[in-house]
Amino acid sequence: MINKKNEKNIVWHEHQLSKKQRARLKGQKACVLWFTGLSGSGKSTIANALEQRLYALNKHTYLLDGDNIRLGLNKDLGFSDKDRIENIRRIGEVSKLFIDSGTMVLTAFISPFLADRNIVRKLVEKGEFIEVFVDTALTICENRDPKGLYLNAREGKISNFTGISSPYEVPLSAEIHLKTEGKSVKTCVVQIIDYLNSKGYL
Amino acid sequence: MINKKNEKNIVWHEHQLSKKQRARLKGQKACVLWFTGLSGSGKSTIANALEQRLYALNKHTYLLDGDNIRLGLNKDLGFSDKDRIENIRRIGEVSKLFIDSGTMVLTAFISPFLADRNIVRKLVEKGEFIEVFVDTALTICENRDPKGLYLNAREGKISNFTGISSPYEVPLSAEIHLKTEGKSVKTCVVQIIDYLNSKGYL
Repeated sequence: MINKKNEKNIVWHEHQLSKKQRARLKGQKACVLWFTGLSGSGKSTIANALEQRLYALNKHTYLLDGDNIRLGLNKDLGFSDKDRIENIRRIGEVSKLFIDSGTMVLTAFISPFLADRNIVRKLVEKGEFIEVFVDTALTICENRDPKGLYLNAREGKISNFTGISSPYEVPLSAEIHLKTEGKSVKTCVVQIIDYLNSKGYL
Repeated sequence: MINKKNEKNIVWHEHQLSKKQRARLKGQKACVLWFTGLSGSGKSTIANALEQRLYALNKHTYLLDGDNIRLGLNKDLGFSDKDRIENIRRIGEVSKLFIDSGTMVLTAFISPFLADRNIVRKLVEKGEFIEVFVDTALTICENRDPKGLYLNAREGKISNFTGISSPYEVPLSAEIHLKTEGKSVKTCVVQIIDYLNSKGYL
């Protein structure tokens, strides 16, 4: 911090750019769309499709998912209970930074525990946390099993696997509840866009 | 991940929004302006003034500093060597995410060690890391001492204080070298803006 009294030629006034200014430049209301659901439920697919749609509407977004978090910021974390909590805490803190920057941030993590999701909800301001419950039956997720994870979990090769050997705590008051059965990805995206429109986010 | 072969009515194609698309929407080239220098050298003041200037140019920025990092994402870290390294590592990873989102990110941390700064430099792509050395003499910084930290360090109340009881490793090839003595904040900002213009960032 420069002590202005001791400096000559200071004509610049120090004040910080505000969250409001940054969001205004982007023409949007910043928030986090927090996708939660079982492995294979469609979180990443729907979040990616939503991001494409928001981009087409000139909205400034960023998607946090396993690809860019687990291999980077959280590469020091494993899958113990302690590390899972720390994983979600850091994702919450990074989401808060992106919201502060005026960005609509999307996150796609199983995030199975109510308590952890509520910590993130309380971390940001009212109206900034939009929980999106991707509600797909376990049998459907297990049938899809694109990465063979359920098979490995059933065979005991993966421990603490959500839905098999570790609980998934269903959201009690998600802002958006996507009952995906029989629905296309597009229909799910439209449901989210309708919500964002009706609440004045877009 | 939805297995499209098993889904009906899928008309949406899954592909991810690219870094290029996000930067294009913002009309800029994303990068991190990594300010480094002693405590009291003027990092935060110059970074804040620069952010104001970039905002006036309709550029999308975000400033990471002690206020939003040490109280949030890195609140679990102390000031041991191990924690200082982890502190910079996480700031580097978060900067990378912001760059990926198309944002020009500014960071204002002492970041005294060459090795740590080089880790961040290597984390991002060529041309995305702009090291800004805020070169202010220790005597001037200590004379300013806005938070009384130097006084406490001299009295031994703070250990491992950069410049007093812990080294500051001067950048060897900073992209921008701000020799602040006798210069106003505005002059420093102009020097950075000139660099960004000449290199095609704006």
